[in-house]
Amino acid sequence: MCLLRVLSAEFIFTICRFAHSLPFATVQAEEISDSRPAEVLNLVQGKWAGSSNWNTVVDPLNGDSFIKVAEVDETGIQPFVESLSSCPKHGVHNPFKAPERYLMFGEISAKAAHMLSLPKVSDFFTRLIQRVSPKSYQQAFGEVYVTQKFLENFCGDQVRFLARSFGVPGNHLGQQSHGFRWPYGPVAIITPFNFPLEIPVLQLMGALYMGNKPVLKVDSKVSIVMDQMLRLLHNCGLPLEDVDFINSDGKTMNKLLLEANPRMTLFTGSSRVAEKLAVDLKGRVKLEDAGFDWKILGPDVLQEDYIAWVCDQDAYACSGQKCSAQSLLFMHENWSKTSLLSKLKDLADRRKLADLTVGPVLTVTTDSMLEHINKLLEIPGSKLLFGGQPLEDHSIPPIYGAMKPTAVYVPLEEIMKAKNFELVTREIFGPFQEVIGQSVNGTAYAGLRARTTGAPQNHWFGPAGDARGAGIGTPEAIKLVWSCHREIIYDFGPVPKNWEVPPST
Amino acid sequence: MCLLRVLSAEFIFTICRFAHSLPFATVQAEEISDSRPAEVLNLVQGKWAGSSNWNTVVDPLNGDSFIKVAEVDETGIQPFVESLSSCPKHGVHNPFKAPERYLMFGEISAKAAHMLSLPKVSDFFTRLIQRVSPKSYQQAFGEVYVTQKFLENFCGDQVRFLARSFGVPGNHLGQQSHGFRWPYGPVAIITPFNFPLEIPVLQLMGALYMGNKPVLKVDSKVSIVMDQMLRLLHNCGLPLEDVDFINSDGKTMNKLLLEANPRMTLFTGSSRVAEKLAVDLKGRVKLEDAGFDWKILGPDVLQEDYIAWVCDQDAYACSGQKCSAQSLLFMHENWSKTSLLSKLKDLADRRKLADLTVGPVLTVTTDSMLEHINKLLEIPGSKLLFGGQPLEDHSIPPIYGAMKPTAVYVPLEEIMKAKNFELVTREIFGPFQEVIGQSVNGTAYAGLRARTTGAPQNHWFGPAGDARGAGIGTPEAIKLVWSCHREIIYDFGPVPKNWEVPPST
Amino acid sequence: MCLLRVLSAEFIFTICRFAHSLPFATVQAEEISDSRPAEVLNLVQGKWAGSSNWNTVVDPLNGDSFIKVAEVDETGIQPFVESLSSCPKHGVHNPFKAPERYLMFGEISAKAAHMLSLPKVSDFFTRLIQRVSPKSYQQAFGEVYVTQKFLENFCGDQVRFLARSFGVPGNHLGQQSHGFRWPYGPVAIITPFNFPLEIPVLQLMGALYMGNKPVLKVDSKVSIVMDQMLRLLHNCGLPLEDVDFINSDGKTMNKLLLEANPRMTLFTGSSRVAEKLAVDLKGRVKLEDAGFDWKILGPDVLQEDYIAWVCDQDAYACSGQKCSAQSLLFMHENWSKTSLLSKLKDLADRRKLADLTVGPVLTVTTDSMLEHINKLLEIPGSKLLFGGQPLEDHSIPPIYGAMKPTAVYVPLEEIMKAKNFELVTREIFGPFQEVIGQSVNGTAYAGLRARTTGAPQNHWFGPAGDARGAGIGTPEAIKLVWSCHREIIYDFGPVPKNWEVPPST
Amino acid sequence: MCLLRVLSAEFIFTICRFAHSLPFATVQAEEISDSRPAEVLNLVQGKWAGSSNWNTVVDPLNGDSFIKVAEVDETGIQPFVESLSSCPKHGVHNPFKAPERYLMFGEISAKAAHMLSLPKVSDFFTRLIQRVSPKSYQQAFGEVYVTQKFLENFCGDQVRFLARSFGVPGNHLGQQSHGFRWPYGPVAIITPFNFPLEIPVLQLMGALYMGNKPVLKVDSKVSIVMDQMLRLLHNCGLPLEDVDFINSDGKTMNKLLLEANPRMTLFTGSSRVAEKLAVDLKGRVKLEDAGFDWKILGPDVLQEDYIAWVCDQDAYACSGQKCSAQSLLFMHENWSKTSLLSKLKDLADRRKLADLTVGPVLTVTTDSMLEHINKLLEIPGSKLLFGGQPLEDHSIPPIYGAMKPTAVYVPLEEIMKAKNFELVTREIFGPFQEVIGQSVNGTAYAGLRARTTGAPQNHWFGPAGDARGAGIGTPEAIKLVWSCHREIIYDFGPVPKNWEVPPST
Repeated sequence: MCLLRVLSAEFIFTICRFAHSLPFATVQAEEISDSRPAEVLNLVQGKWAGSSNWNTVVDPLNGDSFIKVAEVDETGIQPFVESLSSCPKHGVHNPFKAPERYLMFGEISAKAAHMLSLPKVSDFFTRLIQRVSPKSYQQAFGEVYVTQKFLENFCGDQVRFLARSFGVPGNHLGQQSHGFRWPYGPVAIITPFNFPLEIPVLQLMGALYMGNKPVLKVDSKVSIVMDQMLRLLHNCGLPLEDVDFINSDGKTMNKLLLEANPRMTLFTGSSRVAEKLAVDLKGRVKLEDAGFDWKILGPDVLQEDYIAWVCDQDAYACSGQKCSAQSLLFMHENWSKTSLLSKLKDLADRRKLADLTVGPVLTVTTDSMLEHINKLLEIPGSKLLFGGQPLEDHSIPPIYGAMKPTAVYVPLEEIMKAKNFELVTREIFGPFQEVIGQSVNGTAYAGLRARTTGAPQNHWFGPAGDARGAGIGTPEAIKLVWSCHREIIYDFGPVPKNWEVPPST
Repeated sequence: MCLLRVLSAEFIFTICRFAHSLPFATVQAEEISDSRPAEVLNLVQGKWAGSSNWNTVVDPLNGDSFIKVAEVDETGIQPFVESLSSCPKHGVHNPFKAPERYLMFGEISAKAAHMLSLPKVSDFFTRLIQRVSPKSYQQAFGEVYVTQKFLENFCGDQVRFLARSFGVPGNHLGQQSHGFRWPYGPVAIITPFNFPLEIPVLQLMGALYMGNKPVLKVDSKVSIVMDQMLRLLHNCGLPLEDVDFINSDGKTMNKLLLEANPRMTLFTGSSRVAEKLAVDLKGRVKLEDAGFDWKILGPDVLQEDYIAWVCDQDAYACSGQKCSAQSLLFMHENWSKTSLLSKLKDLADRRKLADLTVGPVLTVTTDSMLEHINKLLEIPGSKLLFGGQPLEDHSIPPIYGAMKPTAVYVPLEEIMKAKNFELVTREIFGPFQEVIGQSVNGTAYAGLRARTTGAPQNHWFGPAGDARGAGIGTPEAIKLVWSCHREIIYDFGPVPKNWEVPPST
Repeated sequence: MCLLRVLSAEFIFTICRFAHSLPFATVQAEEISDSRPAEVLNLVQGKWAGSSNWNTVVDPLNGDSFIKVAEVDETGIQPFVESLSSCPKHGVHNPFKAPERYLMFGEISAKAAHMLSLPKVSDFFTRLIQRVSPKSYQQAFGEVYVTQKFLENFCGDQVRFLARSFGVPGNHLGQQSHGFRWPYGPVAIITPFNFPLEIPVLQLMGALYMGNKPVLKVDSKVSIVMDQMLRLLHNCGLPLEDVDFINSDGKTMNKLLLEANPRMTLFTGSSRVAEKLAVDLKGRVKLEDAGFDWKILGPDVLQEDYIAWVCDQDAYACSGQKCSAQSLLFMHENWSKTSLLSKLKDLADRRKLADLTVGPVLTVTTDSMLEHINKLLEIPGSKLLFGGQPLEDHSIPPIYGAMKPTAVYVPLEEIMKAKNFELVTREIFGPFQEVIGQSVNGTAYAGLRARTTGAPQNHWFGPAGDARGAGIGTPEAIKLVWSCHREIIYDFGPVPKNWEVPPST
Repeated sequence: MCLLRVLSAEFIFTICRFAHSLPFATVQAEEISDSRPAEVLNLVQGKWAGSSNWNTVVDPLNGDSFIKVAEVDETGIQPFVESLSSCPKHGVHNPFKAPERYLMFGEISAKAAHMLSLPKVSDFFTRLIQRVSPKSYQQAFGEVYVTQKFLENFCGDQVRFLARSFGVPGNHLGQQSHGFRWPYGPVAIITPFNFPLEIPVLQLMGALYMGNKPVLKVDSKVSIVMDQMLRLLHNCGLPLEDVDFINSDGKTMNKLLLEANPRMTLFTGSSRVAEKLAVDLKGRVKLEDAGFDWKILGPDVLQEDYIAWVCDQDAYACSGQKCSAQSLLFMHENWSKTSLLSKLKDLADRRKLADLTVGPVLTVTTDSMLEHINKLLEIPGSKLLFGGQPLEDHSIPPIYGAMKPTAVYVPLEEIMKAKNFELVTREIFGPFQEVIGQSVNGTAYAGLRARTTGAPQNHWFGPAGDARGAGIGTPEAIKLVWSCHREIIYDFGPVPKNWEVPPST
């Protein structure tokens, strides 16, 4: 077409060509199926590679075998160990070494952000996420959008601004002390199934920006998303050697970590695994496993419709897989006189499998959830508010869960009997101020309009109060998680005239 | 005396009274002896307490039993566990809770700094340090001085400035995200013998400033210093309940940590213990075990006298107990043609036990050091430059070491053969820039006048490249070691007019 | 006394000697009188000097001639011009020049703060302030206390922390860009009568900390306070040459500024003079002339007693000379149904000349104030709430004002008619949020407990929205007012191998 | 075309359509000529408008009348005055008002940066710049590139990060003090001819980011560039009402400023006009009129070719219109023994009008330059090194200058005689360190590879030592130039139990 000949730039060409297909992609999100399964490869030492050992992922909506993952077993980790070990502990770049790489990542981020802003590309990733981590289109698109905005935050010079140092005048002419942000060098990133794009991209780019060489492992059930995203990043200029990507079971990954000995491992996932990793890696970890676990409605009743909607979204969007299963809604008795609970029920009833506003639960089976509900209902005074039954007319495979949105009422005085709950319940009836000042719940959302899903994309998300705690989503999080302080004292001052050797001390 | 009646202020009265004696002190530094032994107590839940179990410390200069330490054994830890557990995980204060405590610590710091600036007080601590950790008067005084300057840094409003938060505009009217520095709550501090005052005070005050409740354990050989310093702090307004102080062996302390489960433990000491603690405490640690391990003299020969003096001070001050035993001086061959080595020898010869410019080594015996020297001398080409012999005419008890300042020459090519030394030797011949950019040695000192002992007291001192690494000495160190990030999103914006419940997602 | 011989330190000696007298002081605050007048000298080029031209200040409480001020006239400014011109425009110190001076100021601050913490010293300054700027003991002591806390904030290393720079990695090996805080060099400070100690000390020390050479002019009516304070600072180590101090009329000062051409002039005072100075000095000024001009009581009535007390203090403490004469209290009609106004009247009635809770007004005569009240009372609907009469039984000289605390009620609808008041009145009935977001009133105090006189001493005080606006009281204020940004790009990178001269561009 | 139908997004459509033409542009850069003159309009209150009064700009290369500028005269300023006055002094947005606008500007920046990254767009602006401010393609492209990178720096959340506030704990429960960056509201920007795109875009966007409403005036000779750039910004989402754009002579602009009374005026240009504006606007200005005026070659001779090339570029690129006419090269005598000067001559000889590596001088005529050279040559010992003659075979109109690259040698001792040059010459022979510490030359470039034209695009550029000094190019510059500090003290703490009215003070 003549129109394209006018332009000499490869990049524009690439963009316009997207109208047809995505040059980086190796799959088509909606056509992955039993008969045309997608393949997830590994990336090490700059090369994509398959495996003799293919793991099969089943479609969470119908049980079909639809993705083949090239799994690395313990015999195959050597190239990954070598790749990681080849990175010196002062990193691939730092404020004194290869500063041009800070600029390179500014350019990669600008290009990748622009790619994700293209409707065809964002649609591709949104649908791919939906295939492996079923949630509504809007929820899946939210991941893509936040990822795009994150990349926009680190265009141009903003990556090198992350490496901003400071200096303080010294004691005498020629002396200054400087503080730098230094990379760890070889690092590992392990991320879970619930946010297949957002969590790995944000942590991966953070690690790269600061000068680290990461090996990335994403839950195999959803790793197809990052397989494709890495290809997009390569397309935008990321050198193939800069990131290794591995699919394996936990045992193999553990072995890799022990042999390659990364100087830092970022783990996002269950606290059980987190605690084990902390021991195995002797504390050289940053952990992110917390979120927003409860909501408190104080004595002032107002904006009932709005509050009901926020409660419904925060509890059931993504089938509750953003929050942990034991999420709580503390409600002052004034609210019980309102129609809030009936409104909550109505909103829950709107959710349906067809548009994935409710969908499969990837880590808990239907039976386990029913059992948990029954135990709760044994508590005196408790009752089922709504839900409590399996989804109907579905083909979700039995290894996954399939439940209607459910709420169980438990009287506060019963909760108060429970071990450890005294503190919690003592806190909740205080006024706002007190609650903030006397808690340590990581990220908190205060105010009438406060929502987890309506917060600015740039806020720090992560636990507070854990010395190993990681954060995600902001320049501060990148700097604290992915770099450490290094101090250099310069002392180029002249030796004073007539200096003489002083006595020993 | 009429002169004192003129003043109503208790503080001034106190100061003037120092002319006679120190109101906080329970010992007199120079009179501690076999016949008048000092006693070190424990402090828990606001009360000083002895023990049924007294440990004896011998005078490092003559072997006399001169200090009795009330040791807590495993049966005695319960009060400490309870005291620590009583501190909520949101701390004793935080930006929302008890902000007046930030000001209280500003006042305590001002008063304590002023106390340490009084000659009588600084002399007391200098001599007390000398008694338990023998070093020259000037070196011991250096500890007191740096501690004073540190306290001066956090007078007035400067403690609350450590708790400075930041805010970013949100997405809509009424929304803002804020980042705060949050305390850990209950914490532990374990510090070594070589800096009996500076290390514990700097870490202790950092922990307190940010709102934590610390239990402090100092190596029993030197804990008399902090016993006295805590009394000074109480005298300056520190509430008795704010810090617990324990004397115990490592096993007991380990048990205490496992039972009380502090949310963070700061350990300064040997890397062997550090690694064990990291595992036992599942990574909830910050470790400081690094320093300045080698010095590099490049090809330019200049300022020979000055360089020799810096080398002598950095190697032998405090009998080498600032640096680790394997300290290295890399010397370009150009220097071997100079009189540097002979000058080094002359300077070492000036050191004598009488003024403690050389003194007992508290953790290695004379025999061990001789054995180490002999092993080094077996390396082909190595030779003894000077020293290599035990001190003479001394009464240092045999459990401690007593060696003359010693240097052994080892050819670089032999070092290069050694395991792990390849990287080190590859780095050292680059020009300055390269060395900085390609290393990760924690605090570094660059330039002709660069000295560990001549750096500004306010520089960050600590390892780089370790995810668990702690720092000491600066506002940044306090904030990173003793607090964590906490994010709060405020959303008090109005619900938009005509808002309607949107579809589920 | 033998007790003092024990101590060798001069400083402690000094402190204890304070019991008798203040070594720096040349006057005794309470004994200044007609018969024993105090003398205020000038300081230039390191020497205190009198003048052939003595100006007389009368006691605001009884009209006695009690202070003689050595005034410099136009013929005497040459030494000041020379002194200022001798300071290079890169300052007395900066991050590269004489960094030891940052430490020196840390020490001066620590010593001066300690001095002001001594009861005898703080009492001296409190009473001296009362003599020249009559206010209650507590209000005058407040100045001394805030000054002490300010000095405490800049002990130890905190002065050099003000000169903290930042660095950003450059484009290639060896390149970095750095931003520094640079002094202006020669500067001038002009401060008013109402805070004779706090305003000049805070601005003076800020100027010095950053490396400037200031000439200071304080309103002659109160300059005795800074005359004495400078002597205290010299006593604490301030070099005599570092600050010049001048007493003169405005015309002479203007001439000095035009001849010496300071690179920046800080002016605190009336906006009329401020505007003239801005023109004369071609904008090389920072101005501080704003404060808290109105208080808004919204529709919620609560804590009546507390609110009444805050209103009384904010309006009448220091005889209203903290705020400007046209101070307004906007009151929602809900408050008019309460006893607030009668409570205000009761509180105003408590104020009496004896303890200076009401006192002379130094810049407006009684007649002028009565005339202003009468004009207000001509507005339809306005009425005198209380006061409105001269003080009785006093000996305040007629050049000063002497009024009872006074309040005039004016209906809002009348205010709204007035030119320029439309915007103000439009703002006030909005909810809190709107008020903050739609105003630019400099420092603002929000919330039920908000008070000007109860705010933390470390807050920034100054106008917002003026490009020439100065602030006072915080590290940020010092950096923005007393230093400017300077950027240095370092580029010590190697020229690339095989570099060849490229084509011209 | 079917390919475009696939995409629903308007933006992608726009991009691809660029293949044909630029949707925002109203001119074609290379076809502007006598017969098809371009028109520059004014923009006020959201509408583009012509004028009854058209000014003609002649082509600097051939004297043709090629641009018609709609000039506003004194009778036409009313709409501009009204537009500016309609902006409240708290700005169009601030941290509490319309925060969604911070995000809007993040998006505008991302889109505009992407647009400028498109070859067709960057080529358009590069050539348009060349038409009005003749310089080589690479130099003109440099402007476009730096502008693109600047916009990349403020994508996503980075605009709101500019409005980052800070908070400090207060004295008691519920009290906090917060510092904000506040806009000025109505502001003016006046920029010169030499950088027709970079200077106005960077200052304009800075003003907008912080919440101001700017009126922009660019030198009419080059204002066609910003006329087109504003249309691009509108195309990327900038509301038409957010910026006013005026073409006028200086007298009219002065009248506008006095009538509209903007709260801040940014002026970049000659120091003569700057000083007048500072007086007229009573100091409510920020001025940028300085740059890199001299280069110092110290005693070490090395890298001759590289140094010669840097000197040539820094002196003659853009026909010297980056630097001021009196630029100096200080050269240690060691360099005079080298072939540096002959290399400089060779490099200057390469420059030719054909590719605009030398071109018209827009503010000085040929005669004026010849006269200046002759005066210099009258100084004893001075000599013409090369150049010194008018360009040949050109059609540059006589109102502009046309000179060959020229260098005149003047002995240092003669310079030293000159008034005011003593300080300068005293500085230059010190070693590097001293030079930095004892100067105040605004942005400085240190090191062998240091170049003005090779510095990172993100460095602060601007004068140091002027209280009115503006900077450009960094987040710090935006914050300091385009916003002011505002402090708010929150005090929502409870009134203490049993509070009673205290005595008056």
